[in-house]
Amino acid sequence: MTEEELQRLREQIKDVTGKIISLAAERNRLAKEIGRIKSERGLQVEDEGAELVLERYVISLCRESGLDERTGLKILHTLIEESKAVQGRTQSKQRITPMTMAAKARKLISEGRDVVRLDVGEPDFGPPKEVVEECIRALNLGKTKYTDTRGIPALISALQNYLESKHRYSTQGENLLVTPGGRFAIFAALSAIVREGESVLIIEPCWPAYRENIDFAGAKAISVRTEIEEGWSPNMEELQGSITETTRAIIISYPSNPTGKIIDRSTFRAIIEIAKDKKITVISDEIYNDYAYTDCPSILDFDVENFVLTSSFSKTWAMTGFRVGYAVSSREIIEKMYRVMALAVTCVPEFIQYGAIKALGSEQDARKNSEIMRRRIEMAYSEISRIDQLQTYKPDGAMYLFPVSKDEKFDSDNFAETLLERKGVAVSPGTGFGDYRRAFRISLGQKEEKIVEGIKKIGELLS
Amino acid sequence: MTEEELQRLREQIKDVTGKIISLAAERNRLAKEIGRIKSERGLQVEDEGAELVLERYVISLCRESGLDERTGLKILHTLIEESKAVQGRTQSKQRITPMTMAAKARKLISEGRDVVRLDVGEPDFGPPKEVVEECIRALNLGKTKYTDTRGIPALISALQNYLESKHRYSTQGENLLVTPGGRFAIFAALSAIVREGESVLIIEPCWPAYRENIDFAGAKAISVRTEIEEGWSPNMEELQGSITETTRAIIISYPSNPTGKIIDRSTFRAIIEIAKDKKITVISDEIYNDYAYTDCPSILDFDVENFVLTSSFSKTWAMTGFRVGYAVSSREIIEKMYRVMALAVTCVPEFIQYGAIKALGSEQDARKNSEIMRRRIEMAYSEISRIDQLQTYKPDGAMYLFPVSKDEKFDSDNFAETLLERKGVAVSPGTGFGDYRRAFRISLGQKEEKIVEGIKKIGELLS
Repeated sequence: MTEEELQRLREQIKDVTGKIISLAAERNRLAKEIGRIKSERGLQVEDEGAELVLERYVISLCRESGLDERTGLKILHTLIEESKAVQGRTQSKQRITPMTMAAKARKLISEGRDVVRLDVGEPDFGPPKEVVEECIRALNLGKTKYTDTRGIPALISALQNYLESKHRYSTQGENLLVTPGGRFAIFAALSAIVREGESVLIIEPCWPAYRENIDFAGAKAISVRTEIEEGWSPNMEELQGSITETTRAIIISYPSNPTGKIIDRSTFRAIIEIAKDKKITVISDEIYNDYAYTDCPSILDFDVENFVLTSSFSKTWAMTGFRVGYAVSSREIIEKMYRVMALAVTCVPEFIQYGAIKALGSEQDARKNSEIMRRRIEMAYSEISRIDQLQTYKPDGAMYLFPVSKDEKFDSDNFAETLLERKGVAVSPGTGFGDYRRAFRISLGQKEEKIVEGIKKIGELLS
Repeated sequence: MTEEELQRLREQIKDVTGKIISLAAERNRLAKEIGRIKSERGLQVEDEGAELVLERYVISLCRESGLDERTGLKILHTLIEESKAVQGRTQSKQRITPMTMAAKARKLISEGRDVVRLDVGEPDFGPPKEVVEECIRALNLGKTKYTDTRGIPALISALQNYLESKHRYSTQGENLLVTPGGRFAIFAALSAIVREGESVLIIEPCWPAYRENIDFAGAKAISVRTEIEEGWSPNMEELQGSITETTRAIIISYPSNPTGKIIDRSTFRAIIEIAKDKKITVISDEIYNDYAYTDCPSILDFDVENFVLTSSFSKTWAMTGFRVGYAVSSREIIEKMYRVMALAVTCVPEFIQYGAIKALGSEQDARKNSEIMRRRIEMAYSEISRIDQLQTYKPDGAMYLFPVSKDEKFDSDNFAETLLERKGVAVSPGTGFGDYRRAFRISLGQKEEKIVEGIKKIGELLS
């Protein structure tokens, strides 16, 4: 009797599954038809408006029928991706990110060319002496074993002390995770928070890694665009209006890579309030926090529960090639991030973790590096201001200039390639940081004379 | 006219989407009904047979209707996961992996207990002297910068030479990727090859990371079970029969963690032939390749295109805490793995890559370490053979024993916890490596006297 009943139900499940698949195929035929019409009329395949309508419709149906919303959105995302594929979406043009420019520059150098590297976001100065010495000491002591994924206890408590003294923020070990770079902290945070078919707000222009990692999670990056004319400030109404029912997080990062912008405390607070109101997580990437030349708020200064702070030793202590960063968040989120890290990389190399402890105590190096960057910003900004064809925001922090061409037809991809080819200067096109084809990024991770030389050559090419 | 047509098509798309979502909800109601009956009759929620029927049905419908198979399978997977959730699938019991045992052991040690660590798969000996010296030299030279994600050119060419001399295998730089450990190579390979709703064959018992990483990719691990009675050899018919239309890869790893088994050349070849025939990728994890005491085939010895070799510096040169490994594969697969690595971690620390070059030249250390492990296997095997309650396969390689209790009711989780609590000996329960509750893993990464002490205490507890 029950076996018969089970059998009958299984047949029904199979039948319903078949109907779903047939409808997906039917949907594809309709999508193809739309694709044909669009291509005849020269319209683009992506249609944000139509997607939003469908998202809302699916969510409302889920609520009526009791189907889990996340499941509904995931099915919708799968269907939309498939539609785009059959509509013959031309593979979106590979963006020229700082990483791709670095590869081009390295290639030229390997061919014997002399290249001024204003592309890569990496300080030219070295790590603190104590960090190198401590890594060496740890290597000699055989600190070359697996550690707990979270990090060695001594580094975790050093981080607790550091956060306490820097931000007057007291935290538990279970709220911390030591990661292979700030990049992995972002990767793991998104894995923990966002699922396929959901969305994450980013404020552009911004570091390309955010969009890449959101894509990897199968989620959608919703861009809040900022403009140099507004001093790269996000508009709060627009930001609030961009959050949809699928949005799970917003990523902010001030001082900003690439613009050097720092938002003021009230704007920071307003973003947090919107996030609280909409019940989304604030991911605050504070990697440039020590290169700040006006008051620079941290997420740790505010009363907010639903957040992830990501940071790194790479900029403050010039430790890019050590690959070590960290995250601060709730126990629940850190636990999920921990699991992702445990399955993908186990831990950060043990002797590097010992070095990192010393970095946290190297306040003097941090201050010295910060001072160098302040001088470079002053100098580079005054140098670039002489180039009439460009408009540049004077950075409040970080280590970049992000000039915008006054020429409406400026194409940053072409410009960067020509500049590298003809003048031997590498910069990163604005298109790597969002839809900014009139802008490009100059990294100040070089000696002053190199930066001046590079900017002068930019001026030459533009005139 | 065209605008109207577009509008009409968009309405139809919305309508079809709505039907799909409603059917998904309907499917859930049926699943709940099945769940209710199953729970009344005490049946388990998972139903492999029913899933296979659905997979085949969906694939046939996709072929008829022209819907992409991968899309169909992904939708099916989403629906099945949702059904399991509404059927109240009890969260599958957290497996006690070597990582969780390590955490327990470390906790006891931090409380002052004396623990014999036979749990963690990590040699007790140190890295080659030249490796440490070279890391130090590189640190002092300021080799602390970002590198290309693939690895520094000097390490890539050192790897090419190494593969040439060790395996007479000649390869291009574009076929190589230096990763933060063998673990990340597995993670990236699965990201590159498998999508949600697809499946990967694993031969159990095996390293828990395979299953964890397959899960993370949203794919299904299909287990080919091996038994000590068959000398841990996989049955070729069973292996072939386990491959379904959704299977994209098989992971093999010999010498095996945990059994120490090495399959012979004809078995290795047979697996490759099956994979070729079924057009699936062979992922061969050869991390224990240098701890081999019978003829040990490598995937590089065979004529096969569709493969990924993953390996690591962790065991051969006792460099676990350096987190450095590598992958060899086709240009296409390496390119995908490269992208995943670029977005998640950028690169392996620069000075560690210099150290890795020296490791590749440290043949003597590799041989010495291998000799130590051979002696330990001999000694530990003879020691464990005295325990009547256990049956143990004599390892052909690797660095473990995987004894199986003769007691049908043996529970390895309880046993491991009791052993740690009462005798201060940490081992890893067999359930971490597959469904092997009568087995446990003893790691030989300790001095001989510790291993003997640990095994004696195991004997005491069992008698």
